[in-house]
Amino acid sequence: MNTWKMMHIHLDIGKSVVSAVPPCYKEFGGRSFTSHVIADLVPPDCNPIGEENILVISTGLLAGSGASSSYRVSIGCKSPLTGGIKESNTGGRTGFALAMLGIRGVIISNIAPEWQIAIINKEGVELEPAGDLVGLNAFDTVEKLHARFGKKAAILTIGTAGEKLLTAACIGATDNDGIPARHAARGGPGAVMGSKRLKAIVIDAQDAKAPKPFDRDRTRAAVKTFATALLDHPTTNTALPLYGTAVMVDGINKVGGLPTRNYSQGQFESADRINGQALYDLIKERGGKTTHACMPGCVIRCSNVIPDKNGEELNRALEYETIALLGSNCGIDDLDTINRLNRMCDDLGIDTIETGAAIGVAMEAGLIPFGDGEKAIGLLEEIKNFSDVGQILGNGAYITGKVLGVKRIPVVKRQSMAAYDPRAIKGTGTTYATSPMGADHTAGNVLPGAKLPDGTVVEPSQAKDQIAISRYTQLMATIFDMLGLCWFTKPPIFEDISLVSDILSAQYEESWDEVKLMTLAKRTIATEIAFNKKAGFSEKDDDLPKFFRTEALPPKGYIYDVDQQALATLHQEKA
Amino acid sequence: MNTWKMMHIHLDIGKSVVSAVPPCYKEFGGRSFTSHVIADLVPPDCNPIGEENILVISTGLLAGSGASSSYRVSIGCKSPLTGGIKESNTGGRTGFALAMLGIRGVIISNIAPEWQIAIINKEGVELEPAGDLVGLNAFDTVEKLHARFGKKAAILTIGTAGEKLLTAACIGATDNDGIPARHAARGGPGAVMGSKRLKAIVIDAQDAKAPKPFDRDRTRAAVKTFATALLDHPTTNTALPLYGTAVMVDGINKVGGLPTRNYSQGQFESADRINGQALYDLIKERGGKTTHACMPGCVIRCSNVIPDKNGEELNRALEYETIALLGSNCGIDDLDTINRLNRMCDDLGIDTIETGAAIGVAMEAGLIPFGDGEKAIGLLEEIKNFSDVGQILGNGAYITGKVLGVKRIPVVKRQSMAAYDPRAIKGTGTTYATSPMGADHTAGNVLPGAKLPDGTVVEPSQAKDQIAISRYTQLMATIFDMLGLCWFTKPPIFEDISLVSDILSAQYEESWDEVKLMTLAKRTIATEIAFNKKAGFSEKDDDLPKFFRTEALPPKGYIYDVDQQALATLHQEKA
Repeated sequence: MNTWKMMHIHLDIGKSVVSAVPPCYKEFGGRSFTSHVIADLVPPDCNPIGEENILVISTGLLAGSGASSSYRVSIGCKSPLTGGIKESNTGGRTGFALAMLGIRGVIISNIAPEWQIAIINKEGVELEPAGDLVGLNAFDTVEKLHARFGKKAAILTIGTAGEKLLTAACIGATDNDGIPARHAARGGPGAVMGSKRLKAIVIDAQDAKAPKPFDRDRTRAAVKTFATALLDHPTTNTALPLYGTAVMVDGINKVGGLPTRNYSQGQFESADRINGQALYDLIKERGGKTTHACMPGCVIRCSNVIPDKNGEELNRALEYETIALLGSNCGIDDLDTINRLNRMCDDLGIDTIETGAAIGVAMEAGLIPFGDGEKAIGLLEEIKNFSDVGQILGNGAYITGKVLGVKRIPVVKRQSMAAYDPRAIKGTGTTYATSPMGADHTAGNVLPGAKLPDGTVVEPSQAKDQIAISRYTQLMATIFDMLGLCWFTKPPIFEDISLVSDILSAQYEESWDEVKLMTLAKRTIATEIAFNKKAGFSEKDDDLPKFFRTEALPPKGYIYDVDQQALATLHQEKA
Repeated sequence: MNTWKMMHIHLDIGKSVVSAVPPCYKEFGGRSFTSHVIADLVPPDCNPIGEENILVISTGLLAGSGASSSYRVSIGCKSPLTGGIKESNTGGRTGFALAMLGIRGVIISNIAPEWQIAIINKEGVELEPAGDLVGLNAFDTVEKLHARFGKKAAILTIGTAGEKLLTAACIGATDNDGIPARHAARGGPGAVMGSKRLKAIVIDAQDAKAPKPFDRDRTRAAVKTFATALLDHPTTNTALPLYGTAVMVDGINKVGGLPTRNYSQGQFESADRINGQALYDLIKERGGKTTHACMPGCVIRCSNVIPDKNGEELNRALEYETIALLGSNCGIDDLDTINRLNRMCDDLGIDTIETGAAIGVAMEAGLIPFGDGEKAIGLLEEIKNFSDVGQILGNGAYITGKVLGVKRIPVVKRQSMAAYDPRAIKGTGTTYATSPMGADHTAGNVLPGAKLPDGTVVEPSQAKDQIAISRYTQLMATIFDMLGLCWFTKPPIFEDISLVSDILSAQYEESWDEVKLMTLAKRTIATEIAFNKKAGFSEKDDDLPKFFRTEALPPKGYIYDVDQQALATLHQEKA
């Protein structure tokens, strides 16, 4: 395991240190790495856009094993959006490139005197002035960097949203073809990168090879077993490759949990205009790609390539959450409009979920009407132009609601909810309330049909068992985030976790099993909660905005009725 | 005591109930009344601009006794600015009018279907449509209401800032001459009144007389003793009547605690252009009034009447805090500009402290330059026009800083500090950190020269004894707020509190003394803290922004170094 490296970039003095991963971090990867490093190095009460915050990037423990879908990379910091700890992970090529270089973690501290870019390669890391990249958005930045470093170089970059410290700013990551369509989206990591005056990180893994697994043959065999399991499962072999995550529009709409018009309805009358089938038809008609892998070696290939009306590629990876937040949640039912909004967000480097939620709140305030796609595009232009209204929206749904005097603001810990109304999908609602990450579906998304480990199916609209299923799913999500594993590999793994622990046991010297993974996941969440407590959060922050408890959600009439006391102690109980 | 009444206005159904003050509230007045009623009736987790919040108005216990400076009126609610409990009190004629009608408290609940005004008189209370008052600012509103109800009617009103739910909105109160120059300023009570669609409250006390004291002769004698003590003390008989609160500019500047350019300096190079003498000279030169009583029967008369350049009355009561926040804190050294800014704030119905702090933060962000008075006036115009930037600023310093990406935001519990830099004046800094009201000097302002009850003089720039002096001063401030007593009567009362407890013992049937007053003050603060805890605050919220602990304040180089653990337990210890 000591072949994996860690690099510490000190932006203030322009120096870097490369070292072996220290023993105390050796079992950490992805989110467990970033969260422990932040807990160890960042004063919880620091200003998230000040010198004391750090940005940590980490490959997962499965990276380099060859396991499918395992090159997600975690990016951690103290969040300028929530004020708490944050881990946000992204697909694309970054994790692969870092793994090839044997890098477990990159720690970026302090603030550069002038805008910089960092170039990481076999020689180590170099900083150089960002020059004319400053002021560019993501697509232009990446184009210029690719011209210099080649298309194979993986790039993490911020757009102008991150430069301007907007707290909805994300970090864009190039996909396997070099397009910055993947994002560490939530919680404002782009603003932290911007505050450090770091415009981009280029990871050039040319001629590099990942550290050798402890037992190469056994690793190969276990990786193959895992790939076979993915290819044998109907969700991972058909639904996701065919429709991408847009497949969920219908399912979530059916159970009455599709956020519509700022969370005032749970079904959208035009859902069939924005669902998986509609997107599939549009892509097919225009000659795009309905299936596409964002990272090397992924057998699921849930991404897509979407042309505009003229058949030109406009977007990649139009995800369910983007469709829901920028679509139904804004009353917008036109895929081309949603597609344009998504592209604008990706280019600016701003989270589509937070931005969609902010626009929904602004629509509720009457700033523009619900359903007006052209005016929504106008609001994105305002963010781009950094106008006053753009600055409001670019700081997310909470700030937008506070400035515009809106009562119904769908956030927890100041971060907007994702595309699952917590009244209809109470397990995800319970995750929103209790995750140290704020309202983040990726922290433990409990979809209809979810089962407890004992096989009990949990009914999404009922309060019963939601604490247990959310806790279990949050721990599982933490394991996935530790491993760098895409959540979409979940179906076979939830049936048999040894599919991945066997790879780890072969890849590293120590033996891994479910108990060890669960123990590390619990330790990671406990570390995050302890950080948040020191940063000022209390048990009272572990709840949904009250209107979800009092305002019945049409048409099914659900309210969120999971006991608040149970929420406050969710992570204190044994899983 | 049961001659005092309470009225409950239910705006949703347009009905009111008048009753005797119930026994459990009979020892409460002012802040102790409003805070206990809020703790009893308002769900701590409610939306401050929703149906569940209430607005409570209460006269102090000394009201009606004839004691000098005792007609301040407390206004309480859950604050839309801080999210915690709030009491904000104001001088002017309101307390007098309510006391003449025998009213201890007015509870205003729910939301009116259409904009209303409330008229309170000897008959009770009536609601009627606000009609063409909606959309008017404070001076026009008051003029129209006076035309109808006469100059003697006391009026509480919001301007357009409150109508638009801006969280820096205050409630304006007419002074003894009918000018809306007095304010329940802090924490956004104007937004709560606006959210209830209540434009104004007219209190017509014609031919009414306050409830008879229990022992009229003894009350008269005690009131006279108190007035004599005020007239014998050099602070209350000379400094305040001569210069008003502007007298403090020099003193606070001298100790290096005058907020200058968004709290980046503690002395302002042009302090002598905005100090008490400069204001006195300007008023004298233009034929204004350097001394003026805001309420009936005040012997201190610290208010003033300030003409503009043409000799026309522009302002009343230009206070030290306004001069510091809209002046030195913005780098503005021109009294006429500060005067115009003050008038615009008063008319819009927006807190001068919060607004000055927000402009200071916006200047730090580079929105306009420090010192540019005309551009600062332009920003007030933006608030008036409810433009995007106006909405940002009108929601206070915290939101402004968050939207504009500013690191140094001088707030506690999201409320801006007042005109005392906490590094140089650590007792007030300790009050900012620990008061359940957020950063509010009125919750316990510890000025240079402050003494502990045992006579120890506390050095403002040293950490020593700040916990003790802040706790003591917060309890004393709570007593003043319970009694409806202006803080400026403090000098003789801090030497001998029986000056006021003797009045209470004569005015009411029960006997009052220092122990009873202190017990009620402690109970009030404990009730407020319990409310805040349920609303989501934790001990971590009892601290100053970190930069006050790390950034030395020029020119004297002070940092705020009172131990955070001691802050967190300040109100748990025995006073």
